[in-house]
Amino acid sequence: MTETMLERRARLMGPNVPTFYRTPVHIVKGQGVWLWDTSGKRYLDCYNNVPHVGHCHPRVVQAIAAQAAELNTHTRYLHDLVLDYIERLTGKLGHGLSQAIMVCTGSEANDIALRMAQAVTGNTGIIATDNTYHGNTSAVSQLSSRRPPIGGRAPNVRLVPAPDNLRPVGGSLAGQAQAFADNVARAIVELEAAGFGFSGMMLCPAFANEGLPSVPKGFLDPTVQVVRAAGGVMIADEVQPGFGRMGSDFWGHEALGFAPDIVTVGKPMANGHPVAAVLARPDVMAAFRNAFGYFNTFGGNPVSAAACLEVLQVIEDEGLQHNAAVVSAHVMARMQALRHPLLADVRGNGMFFGAEFVLDDAMTPATDFVADLVEALVTRGFILNRIGRAQNTLKIRPPLPFSIENADSLMDAIEAVLAEAPVPA
Amino acid sequence: MTETMLERRARLMGPNVPTFYRTPVHIVKGQGVWLWDTSGKRYLDCYNNVPHVGHCHPRVVQAIAAQAAELNTHTRYLHDLVLDYIERLTGKLGHGLSQAIMVCTGSEANDIALRMAQAVTGNTGIIATDNTYHGNTSAVSQLSSRRPPIGGRAPNVRLVPAPDNLRPVGGSLAGQAQAFADNVARAIVELEAAGFGFSGMMLCPAFANEGLPSVPKGFLDPTVQVVRAAGGVMIADEVQPGFGRMGSDFWGHEALGFAPDIVTVGKPMANGHPVAAVLARPDVMAAFRNAFGYFNTFGGNPVSAAACLEVLQVIEDEGLQHNAAVVSAHVMARMQALRHPLLADVRGNGMFFGAEFVLDDAMTPATDFVADLVEALVTRGFILNRIGRAQNTLKIRPPLPFSIENADSLMDAIEAVLAEAPVPA
Repeated sequence: MTETMLERRARLMGPNVPTFYRTPVHIVKGQGVWLWDTSGKRYLDCYNNVPHVGHCHPRVVQAIAAQAAELNTHTRYLHDLVLDYIERLTGKLGHGLSQAIMVCTGSEANDIALRMAQAVTGNTGIIATDNTYHGNTSAVSQLSSRRPPIGGRAPNVRLVPAPDNLRPVGGSLAGQAQAFADNVARAIVELEAAGFGFSGMMLCPAFANEGLPSVPKGFLDPTVQVVRAAGGVMIADEVQPGFGRMGSDFWGHEALGFAPDIVTVGKPMANGHPVAAVLARPDVMAAFRNAFGYFNTFGGNPVSAAACLEVLQVIEDEGLQHNAAVVSAHVMARMQALRHPLLADVRGNGMFFGAEFVLDDAMTPATDFVADLVEALVTRGFILNRIGRAQNTLKIRPPLPFSIENADSLMDAIEAVLAEAPVPA
Repeated sequence: MTETMLERRARLMGPNVPTFYRTPVHIVKGQGVWLWDTSGKRYLDCYNNVPHVGHCHPRVVQAIAAQAAELNTHTRYLHDLVLDYIERLTGKLGHGLSQAIMVCTGSEANDIALRMAQAVTGNTGIIATDNTYHGNTSAVSQLSSRRPPIGGRAPNVRLVPAPDNLRPVGGSLAGQAQAFADNVARAIVELEAAGFGFSGMMLCPAFANEGLPSVPKGFLDPTVQVVRAAGGVMIADEVQPGFGRMGSDFWGHEALGFAPDIVTVGKPMANGHPVAAVLARPDVMAAFRNAFGYFNTFGGNPVSAAACLEVLQVIEDEGLQHNAAVVSAHVMARMQALRHPLLADVRGNGMFFGAEFVLDDAMTPATDFVADLVEALVTRGFILNRIGRAQNTLKIRPPLPFSIENADSLMDAIEAVLAEAPVPA
């Protein structure tokens, strides 16, 4: 049956359509941190950040259903909900980021952010890390090192080496922050020499796709100084870290301790309803809005706004940011107690964890080994995946209601699978 | 109150955020072809194409609510609904267009279509009309003449004069189709000479944003011949004409009688839920999929697919394409009976109508006059707007359940407003 479905996908979607796992799961139901497949098998969801407050949260479902029955139209007519939401969301941000454009996907948000940086500075040179993903539009895919854009990398884009716990930029962990900033400074010089000028730097404050390196608070200080001195803007892509996942803070940039000029948000903000946004200071927003008459048909419609408002309220009412902090500490304690000859590093940032496996002292990635671990865990009913440059880091990023009990059952399973895993010769 | 709300919008959204009408309406409820504002005033919706099967259609609302309560996750797990939908949707298309990528907005769909053309041909030169809108991403805004892109028009883009009933390309209506094709041929030569090569042409088969010129079936034949001879692909942006609006046909390209290589769809396909798609032949799809590992987090999720499936079923069950044909003929008869010194042309294409007003025999657009008409009609409870290069054409594009009775009340109102309208000196 599964094979037939894969053939049907290939027939209707074409080749090279991503699936997870060697035998992709066929999920039909979700509730809270749980998923069920067609056979009735239950999985603990240790991976999905889109169902941020839990799969099919009844309050979010109800908000969507009620507003969809009342009105769903575009923002060229006036409506309260989109304004109520922007007011509440910007209320969660400092640094004068008081305005928003509502869109439908993180890709659309980052596509706008790039043009905001261009509108503010008059330049097109842009910098990102060399192991990241910021979306899939023509423009944003230029910054996504893991999926090279069609037609090749544009000359106004520079990718600098991403921070790394085991292979630090510049060769030492102590010097990594400065080495990272030095590379940014070099890239700026190159962009200016090539005639593009410098518009800014876009990064995920949790370096999530980079492999979730555990960089210290203040890590970006030298980089921000370099970017500002060159007249560029800092764009924080909060699609993964935002909305309380960090536990300690509501935003990744707060946890890292820097002030972005532009923040983009997406995946978790409406628990799966297609919504995203760009948040900016009024001066940055005005530069973009006055240079381009932006309008998004679905962006900020009443149903999206209702879903977004309910997600914010549920995060507060259910104390999910606090839960992320508490469960994070518990998972980290158990991760640090893991023992395996190939386990090189465990790290976590709120409700987001990585366990990196290498084959030898040269830090050769144990990519196949981790792929096998993931398959073994899925078979046991745990949905998770891999991350990092060589996909040799176990990636754990559950919905925020993930409990201590859920964490213990996951960690028990990881211990059991590691105990059984054959160590490569 | 309205003024306070506009101030609040400016504070939270920034400057230059589009609204409709001099005194924007504050809509709070919708049902079928009707909208209500905060005061309880009822409006007949003669404009919105997104609520395709009627505002808040109970079956679509129910489909969204039921699936949102069951499961909403991404397509890297297997799920039937997205496949069921692609199978049904591609079943509505000929020309071997049997595969789809599901995304969230028409802009995302067109952004992919441009890259598909590039992947198929290896070239980047692209042609559109000079009075159109295909979306708002960095790449797609390059084709949108009405909102010049930030940083200026890219050199790989050529815009050719759009067809026009009153000011035909090449000077005569009879020669317009060939003159249009000749301009495309010239643009291809320019793109090839400039080193970009030619990847294809993107256009709306109803020329909706161009002002809805009533071009005859076969109008594009000479153009398609030129495009194919140069190795380019034809991209039909069906965001406005698709899904039965043309009445005579399910798609705009069918009504116009040409075979596209790529079709993009959006706004009406899920009645307001943020969904869009790119449809293509397997060879075109494979060229893109194999060149770029495309994945869209929200695209094709079970809730989107359920909403899309229900919209298709409602179109069939309620005979909405047939209704579009019947009501279209009735509206056109009444439009042709309109008499006013400034009325220069009436035209319609299924459930989409334009009435163009000019000041003189030189066809000087009566832009302000039409703006006043729109305001007078909104005041009387009719939601519509303007279209065309100079925004001097009344734009009527209601949800498909728009009835003969609805049409008569609209046409009575237009007659009354025209009778009262002062004719500019």
